[in-house]
Amino acid sequence: MLNRRIVVAALLLAGLSSWSLGALAQSDPLPSWNDGKAKQAIIDFVAKVTRDGGADFVKPAERIATFDNDGTLWAEQPVYFQLQFAFDEVKRLAAQNPDWKAKEPFRSVLARDLKGLAASGEKGLLQIMAATHTGMTTDQFAATVANWLASARHPTKQRPYTEMVYQPQLELLTYLRANGFKTFIVSGGGVEFMRVFAEKAYGIPPEQVVGSTGVVKFRIGGDGRPELFKDSKVEFVDDGPGKPVGINRAIGRRPILAFGNSDGDLQMLQYAAAGPGARLALIIHHTDAEREWAYDRTSKIGKLDKALDEAAAKGWTVVDMKADWKTVFPASK
Amino acid sequence: MLNRRIVVAALLLAGLSSWSLGALAQSDPLPSWNDGKAKQAIIDFVAKVTRDGGADFVKPAERIATFDNDGTLWAEQPVYFQLQFAFDEVKRLAAQNPDWKAKEPFRSVLARDLKGLAASGEKGLLQIMAATHTGMTTDQFAATVANWLASARHPTKQRPYTEMVYQPQLELLTYLRANGFKTFIVSGGGVEFMRVFAEKAYGIPPEQVVGSTGVVKFRIGGDGRPELFKDSKVEFVDDGPGKPVGINRAIGRRPILAFGNSDGDLQMLQYAAAGPGARLALIIHHTDAEREWAYDRTSKIGKLDKALDEAAAKGWTVVDMKADWKTVFPASK
Repeated sequence: MLNRRIVVAALLLAGLSSWSLGALAQSDPLPSWNDGKAKQAIIDFVAKVTRDGGADFVKPAERIATFDNDGTLWAEQPVYFQLQFAFDEVKRLAAQNPDWKAKEPFRSVLARDLKGLAASGEKGLLQIMAATHTGMTTDQFAATVANWLASARHPTKQRPYTEMVYQPQLELLTYLRANGFKTFIVSGGGVEFMRVFAEKAYGIPPEQVVGSTGVVKFRIGGDGRPELFKDSKVEFVDDGPGKPVGINRAIGRRPILAFGNSDGDLQMLQYAAAGPGARLALIIHHTDAEREWAYDRTSKIGKLDKALDEAAAKGWTVVDMKADWKTVFPASK
Repeated sequence: MLNRRIVVAALLLAGLSSWSLGALAQSDPLPSWNDGKAKQAIIDFVAKVTRDGGADFVKPAERIATFDNDGTLWAEQPVYFQLQFAFDEVKRLAAQNPDWKAKEPFRSVLARDLKGLAASGEKGLLQIMAATHTGMTTDQFAATVANWLASARHPTKQRPYTEMVYQPQLELLTYLRANGFKTFIVSGGGVEFMRVFAEKAYGIPPEQVVGSTGVVKFRIGGDGRPELFKDSKVEFVDDGPGKPVGINRAIGRRPILAFGNSDGDLQMLQYAAAGPGARLALIIHHTDAEREWAYDRTSKIGKLDKALDEAAAKGWTVVDMKADWKTVFPASK
């Protein structure tokens, strides 16, 4: 402990000399953001809630920032990546399930029959999710996701999914944390799925990931050791009105900053924006067909319609991806 | 930010000079714990998981410690304090509910008729909980709890409930956090109830409180502002096998230290103890009829039977309150 404190003190003092030369003021904490209204709104907000003694000062403990994941921290086209994982798992597990070749909805997935899959509807999707996400322990599921992430590539961008994260958002997360914010994911995605990569990809630890959940049961396994078994029943859908509910349950404080990109984030944004004091509600508008994708009001994935209207009505900050982001994805590793 | 860093650096350097005189080595981080096996087990465990390069080193991010609340962080006799809150609320709300005088289970509460209350069984208790914990917004409920805590006194100790916390445990929480642990409450108590006092009483912020939950619904209130409404349906009981499930959902990491006092903590202790690497499972045995209460295998509140046997079988650390704690409650404020 003593040694560590000496090192910390030395580093701080070393840092001070360069800062006093003005290095701090010159460095841009958000280099992948173009100058503009969105970037300025973020910087102004952070400045005012951290200005000790200022009218809008917020104690560090209350600097809660919540981020949607799909379409906000990483991409979500052509389908949610967790759904792509489920499809890939159906293919991987087909050898052990020979009946799937003739059994919907699995047949459609294996035959890449999108029409057949669509015809199976929500019930079909739930069957696919159950077959690939449940009937195993939480540890087994996490290992499966980790294996998939290590080898899977995005169908059109040909990148690992963990490189489909948005560089400007990585900078924003770091910037917020450097200013005493606690950053959370609040996503409709499965919490057990996201936790596998959230810490490495975003610096967000498992206990700050809020998401949809299936029923999990505690039991003593065959080896006499306790384990958590993933049941096939959906427990909680952390989407739309579920987001403020999930925030309340898991965080217990109203965020002062919330960032989303679709109508599924509307209630989270309303909830964050309606609290007392300074608030920042942000929406990414996917406007960049070249570097990413362009979609909004009529998209099946990440539909942004009501929330876009409400953003205009309430003065929320809309980030125009094409105009506001200098870079979209990080450099390949 | 710059100013704060200068202050931090100055404090660190000021601290170093006194530490180099040996002040650190001499100070006891757990002054309310008597020397003995329990205290030594804690200190040895913390030393080994924080020894950088040691065989049992655990990264700070994985130093998760979970504490039961009732009977572990604060007392729980003669009845769980949250239940006492519910009874007091029935009395407070009786004026607005004149029919309660003749209607069970409320009649029994108002008449202090314990037999009548017992006869109403679990159904009666759920009715009392619903009448006092639901049908209002989360903000309204939190204000009600805060009001109660400000004026209510423990029936026999005559102290505010927030002074019914255990001094040795406050020291332990501080000691763990100073050593890079993240401390969580994992309790059968209601999460909305505990969050009102957990930060001030224990230094545990709302997002690190895991507990039982009722269904909460997002809605736009009469004033056009979003609010969270507490519904009368029980959602999740964070007790017994529910504790590892609650830990998995809210924290997503297996604790390396877990502390409980009753059979309701058994599965949490099993789950924590069964992970890889160094683990510490602790149980408070309420053995102090003079300063606190003495109860275990046959108690209706905080029954400790199976977990006491398993502690003996598995070598978990049993804290004998009478012998191991120099002080039980903090000095009155």
